[in-house]
Amino acid sequence: MAVITTLHRNEDGISSVIGILKQQFGERLQTGQAIREQHGHTTTWLTNQAPDAVVFPKNAEDVSEIVRICAEYQVPVIPFGTGTSLEGHVNAPGGGMSVDLSQMNQVLAVHSQDLDCVIQPGVTRKQLNTHLRDQGLFFPIDPGADASLGGMASTRASGTNAVRYGTMKDNILSLQAVMPDGQIIRTAARARKSSAGYDLTRLLIGSEGTLGIITELTLKLHGIPEAMSSAICSFPTVDAACQAVIATIQYGIPVARIELLDALTVKAVNAYSKLTLPEETLLLLEFHGSDTAVAEQAKTFGEIAADASGYNFTWTTSPEEHTKLWQARHDAYWATLQLRPGAKGISTDVCVPISRLADCVTATQAKTVELGFMAPIVGHVGDGNFHTLVLVDTDNPDEIAKADHFVGWLNDLAISMEGTCTGEHGIGQGKIPYLKKELGPATDVMATIKRALDPHNIMNPGKIVAF
Amino acid sequence: MAVITTLHRNEDGISSVIGILKQQFGERLQTGQAIREQHGHTTTWLTNQAPDAVVFPKNAEDVSEIVRICAEYQVPVIPFGTGTSLEGHVNAPGGGMSVDLSQMNQVLAVHSQDLDCVIQPGVTRKQLNTHLRDQGLFFPIDPGADASLGGMASTRASGTNAVRYGTMKDNILSLQAVMPDGQIIRTAARARKSSAGYDLTRLLIGSEGTLGIITELTLKLHGIPEAMSSAICSFPTVDAACQAVIATIQYGIPVARIELLDALTVKAVNAYSKLTLPEETLLLLEFHGSDTAVAEQAKTFGEIAADASGYNFTWTTSPEEHTKLWQARHDAYWATLQLRPGAKGISTDVCVPISRLADCVTATQAKTVELGFMAPIVGHVGDGNFHTLVLVDTDNPDEIAKADHFVGWLNDLAISMEGTCTGEHGIGQGKIPYLKKELGPATDVMATIKRALDPHNIMNPGKIVAF
Repeated sequence: MAVITTLHRNEDGISSVIGILKQQFGERLQTGQAIREQHGHTTTWLTNQAPDAVVFPKNAEDVSEIVRICAEYQVPVIPFGTGTSLEGHVNAPGGGMSVDLSQMNQVLAVHSQDLDCVIQPGVTRKQLNTHLRDQGLFFPIDPGADASLGGMASTRASGTNAVRYGTMKDNILSLQAVMPDGQIIRTAARARKSSAGYDLTRLLIGSEGTLGIITELTLKLHGIPEAMSSAICSFPTVDAACQAVIATIQYGIPVARIELLDALTVKAVNAYSKLTLPEETLLLLEFHGSDTAVAEQAKTFGEIAADASGYNFTWTTSPEEHTKLWQARHDAYWATLQLRPGAKGISTDVCVPISRLADCVTATQAKTVELGFMAPIVGHVGDGNFHTLVLVDTDNPDEIAKADHFVGWLNDLAISMEGTCTGEHGIGQGKIPYLKKELGPATDVMATIKRALDPHNIMNPGKIVAF
Repeated sequence: MAVITTLHRNEDGISSVIGILKQQFGERLQTGQAIREQHGHTTTWLTNQAPDAVVFPKNAEDVSEIVRICAEYQVPVIPFGTGTSLEGHVNAPGGGMSVDLSQMNQVLAVHSQDLDCVIQPGVTRKQLNTHLRDQGLFFPIDPGADASLGGMASTRASGTNAVRYGTMKDNILSLQAVMPDGQIIRTAARARKSSAGYDLTRLLIGSEGTLGIITELTLKLHGIPEAMSSAICSFPTVDAACQAVIATIQYGIPVARIELLDALTVKAVNAYSKLTLPEETLLLLEFHGSDTAVAEQAKTFGEIAADASGYNFTWTTSPEEHTKLWQARHDAYWATLQLRPGAKGISTDVCVPISRLADCVTATQAKTVELGFMAPIVGHVGDGNFHTLVLVDTDNPDEIAKADHFVGWLNDLAISMEGTCTGEHGIGQGKIPYLKKELGPATDVMATIKRALDPHNIMNPGKIVAF
């Protein structure tokens, strides 16, 4: 397991808080070992650091009460959505209370004329889209996992269709949040745009629970497009595929998704999803719009791809074909794990300017071969974001050390290309040193804000800014 | 003139700083009365509060040096772009140094493959678009005035095409800024998206120089669309026009602009720009895309407008017609001033959920009639944002009092409709009380951040948060 830090435990405070909250929350406070461990980090390779108790609020007032009591006793508060984050965001390095928001899962209002909705933070993206379907609306952000929307806001999540619809930061109008002193605030009105003071909405989005707990979200919605089509095209090299991506973006084709699968991933997907795609670099696209528009977009992309040595270009508006292709993409994670049964996958998350993407992906492939890793790559390449899934035997310390070296090497490479160590997973515990490398003195400004808003460091301590 | 507050003047500190900076900046520090007054508030009705000196830095190091010296002597620093802001943002209520960024006007890099550019803050939007034109690129945000991009970032500006391209917050990848202690930071990498820590980019956008001075911007760019078309349509009522807007947005037509002109504005525009539009509520639209797409979009809008009792629908792809219509829209400010020669225009800036827009505009029209004001309305109605230009004789205290009452009434109305007191102009001095009404306890959080980052309150004091 990767080494991560622990924080001082305030044993007396923790006992006191558990006693008080048990009285108030009864069965909605749990201290069993299994549930506590489920609420620590459970994904990839970071150590599980379980909280001391898990409490289940039903509304913002409950959350405020929990935070007030924790503030009084200076006990850590760690918000928990679905536990699908990847950088140890839900770990409790100094113990404390996990605040599980899964019972705050109501869609409070859908304003179809305004194309927005108001929800509690425990609503998951699939739950929301099921709720919206009858009204012809959808919420576009899709990080793969059926994460809670509060959690997605907290990590500034995005995923496959950010190239068209942006990330969580672009799709939230307003938040209600409980601040470190227990005060409940609303960050903005429900208006579509605003210049009303500091952008607390965006400050909380991506703050990973270190500045407050999100208790309500007002989200932008979109009409379900009249038509959707999918296209695939194979390329002889990563570089050729990236040239096609750059041309597609420059041409202004409003692609909804443009995903790269490297040859190794295609091989895994073929085996797992029983497809017969050429086992070379693949681009998989989705187009949204009117019937005319999606046909035009696919045609134009086909021409661009051909100019970039693409082959086997096919496109379809058949819902069955569409679903089959995208299911295969969504299953790529499971498919690639089969390349080395028993191994765990460690996902990197760099994002670089797309002019540097081909260089970055190609160098990454060479480096993993050099290190002897099986490490398939998938990328949200319209944004320059890609993930290497390094398949590691986590019982082998040599492999762990090599994987650690590789992650650092890749983050450094991306930063040297004016990119970031995290396009969408967030900093959590795992990326604190790289955040410092990437942004230097700006991290001091982050720490100043953290200290001002949370002087006793009770809100998800040990994440993003360490102090 | 509207009454605004003054702050304590640190006379000794101001003299010392002027002495030191004069030595370092020579002719690039000016203290003449005319230039000082030009650098105080010069638009609409707020009192001009001139700074004590104006200094012209050439680079971030100059800005850092100025801020360090001002910090040492606790003297206010007020960044100045082109002076086109509307809420007293560049006033110096406690005196101090105006930092005029007009000499920092270089386009430092254009990355056409990445669709971004790096510029200094004094570059104006027209200058940038002229620079970009040969490469087939443009920067879309258009607040009307040829403002500096640093100023536009500072007020979170937007304008006519935010409905398609978003506001400044959506079009900036990264900022370089000088913080209140003189430290130079970079807020983000140049990657298209990032989850790397607190979103300092968005915290600075809209902070109106109260947290730092922007010294460099990395902006997202767009390809110039293959085709543009314009359409106009008249409506019997504001409500009918708003219904057409709602349907257009719901239908997902990617309109680039959708502007409402009320009957009074159309009358003024007809007279000023020698047009013969029906003198009723008008929608003016622009579509961007391929030839096929803009034709399809215009046709669909025409059908929607007809369903909402629209008439006189016409659309054109002729560049001459297009330019003529949009020139008339851009000249609406000057046109409406002619409705009452000699009067000054006071511009309101509320933004409400579009389901409430018709009610809000209709009530506003009734209220201005009741108060006896000539007050034409234009609106960026795809976002629910509209401006009432109240034509006021600023030598008449009764009118000033009535205008003040009206502005307050309208802000309160918008807030009661879940809207904001400012869609795009910002808080400055004029809207501080309404910000408090709109966001309540969130303004305490803003003040905490301000105090933490700028403990001596030297960065544009007396704006957004008063303490």
